[in-house]
Amino acid sequence: MGSSSRILIIGAAGYIGRHVAKASLALGHPTFLLIRDSTASAKPDKAQLLDSFKTAGANLIGGSLEDHASLVEAVKKVDIVISTVGGEEIASQFNIIKAIKEVGTIQRFLPSEFGNDVDNSHAVEPAKSVFELKAKVRRAIEAEGIPYTYVSSNCFAGYFLPTLAQPGLTAPPRDKVVILGDGNAKAVYVNEEDIGVFTIKAVDDPRTLNKTLYLRLPANTLSFNEVVSLWEKKIDKTLEKVYIPDEQVLTLIAETPFPGNIGIAIGHSIFVKGDQTNFEIGPDGVEASQLYPDVKYTTVAEYLSKFV
Amino acid sequence: MGSSSRILIIGAAGYIGRHVAKASLALGHPTFLLIRDSTASAKPDKAQLLDSFKTAGANLIGGSLEDHASLVEAVKKVDIVISTVGGEEIASQFNIIKAIKEVGTIQRFLPSEFGNDVDNSHAVEPAKSVFELKAKVRRAIEAEGIPYTYVSSNCFAGYFLPTLAQPGLTAPPRDKVVILGDGNAKAVYVNEEDIGVFTIKAVDDPRTLNKTLYLRLPANTLSFNEVVSLWEKKIDKTLEKVYIPDEQVLTLIAETPFPGNIGIAIGHSIFVKGDQTNFEIGPDGVEASQLYPDVKYTTVAEYLSKFV
Repeated sequence: MGSSSRILIIGAAGYIGRHVAKASLALGHPTFLLIRDSTASAKPDKAQLLDSFKTAGANLIGGSLEDHASLVEAVKKVDIVISTVGGEEIASQFNIIKAIKEVGTIQRFLPSEFGNDVDNSHAVEPAKSVFELKAKVRRAIEAEGIPYTYVSSNCFAGYFLPTLAQPGLTAPPRDKVVILGDGNAKAVYVNEEDIGVFTIKAVDDPRTLNKTLYLRLPANTLSFNEVVSLWEKKIDKTLEKVYIPDEQVLTLIAETPFPGNIGIAIGHSIFVKGDQTNFEIGPDGVEASQLYPDVKYTTVAEYLSKFV
Repeated sequence: MGSSSRILIIGAAGYIGRHVAKASLALGHPTFLLIRDSTASAKPDKAQLLDSFKTAGANLIGGSLEDHASLVEAVKKVDIVISTVGGEEIASQFNIIKAIKEVGTIQRFLPSEFGNDVDNSHAVEPAKSVFELKAKVRRAIEAEGIPYTYVSSNCFAGYFLPTLAQPGLTAPPRDKVVILGDGNAKAVYVNEEDIGVFTIKAVDDPRTLNKTLYLRLPANTLSFNEVVSLWEKKIDKTLEKVYIPDEQVLTLIAETPFPGNIGIAIGHSIFVKGDQTNFEIGPDGVEASQLYPDVKYTTVAEYLSKFV
């Protein structure tokens, strides 16, 4: 298929979907975006974003996950389906699986993942349920025999680095930093644009067929202490460090009401349990920077420079 | 039944469940708590909490929502079932409905609500899906003909007031406050202990049978501007106010990845749309402070005093 494979993106206006759509267009794929009619009118910024995709050559298709006929029509137009729906719509992806099965010609499906590897998780509730639902979607894809790639892109750089994961800040802290656990578990921070590029590189690569694509970028695989240290060097200042031990994080999760508890539980999985790096990539996985050494990804050090 | 009605609480170690359990014991109800065996050993603080309930006379029953037989056994022991499961376990409540239906003797079921009235909502995604799932649970209860009370307790005081809803703070701000919308929509702030007491008062009250119990406490039904003003008077200082207009809040929701977007979308529903107070209580609802004028609830003014 090469670079001419036709791609449908479901959720292209979302946080990560917009970067996947940009990469698909930039890398020359005929790009189709499934768009709920109502959303464009509701949010001017979203309409503007969709207009920019249209100008860049994207084909906008009206439809939704709840409208089976629209979904089937959209799936029929393409070779590859990428879902980037939000965390609250994970279960709706069973509708995509049904449509792909019905159409029967899709050569690769990438469900909405873009985080921790949900098959290698030590998360506690409520993150546990969130990850298990993604795992259920994986099992349904496999049961239907649909060719797939799961993109485990680990931490969104733009979510964690601008504040060093300190709630309420708008820039990295210059006095004090709160650290979950002992700060030694390694996580992987990936720029959202790079997630888009690696994802599109993988969509028709035979090496990623029925595999998990791990974005375990060497320069960005860092412990939280290492991230803080990088930042300290940049601002030439030592921060006060407040470590929250495992038990105390668990108590915090139990005593924080929904939905605040989800984010803490995900943080516990990443920063205390080390779930992004505490396993070796097995025969069912491939590593993105090894497959695509030509992609010059943004490093954490570069990312942090803009906040100095 | 009076005060001797037997109560089963599912989720008693959780954020709101612990207050419901305390109130049940304090008001003299034979109190049964469904406890997952594994949780007590995993978290020392939780074990300590459960021990304190045991000492106060609670009957701890091993079991879980996934173990139908255990659920049926627990339901058989009581007259009333209260679910206080977390936001991620809302769908698991269909299992409780099944068990209640099978046992056939339950005189009242209170599903896990304890927030906005999900049948009067203008929430956008991802909060919309969260609320719709609670509404589906309501419809399932009604379809099975199970006697119910829905407790719409609005904002947890302990979640919003200690920081005036400013992420990352540990005390109310003394310089600047960010306000969603124009700050004029009225919300209701209720102390968690009071939620527990009003809930238990309602469980065997014929006036709350098949009704929604709204905690629309007059002294605590305040616009965000009024809450800020109360705080300003207490610290004798005027805060800088940064208002985020509706459109900008919608953009923020769209551009924040899961799970951070849920909290903002809930905030949008409460503080921009005014979903806690923008409707009149109809014939299917009753107001808690009118039914139970003897309950001396904590006012927002009193609550804020402890931070001065």
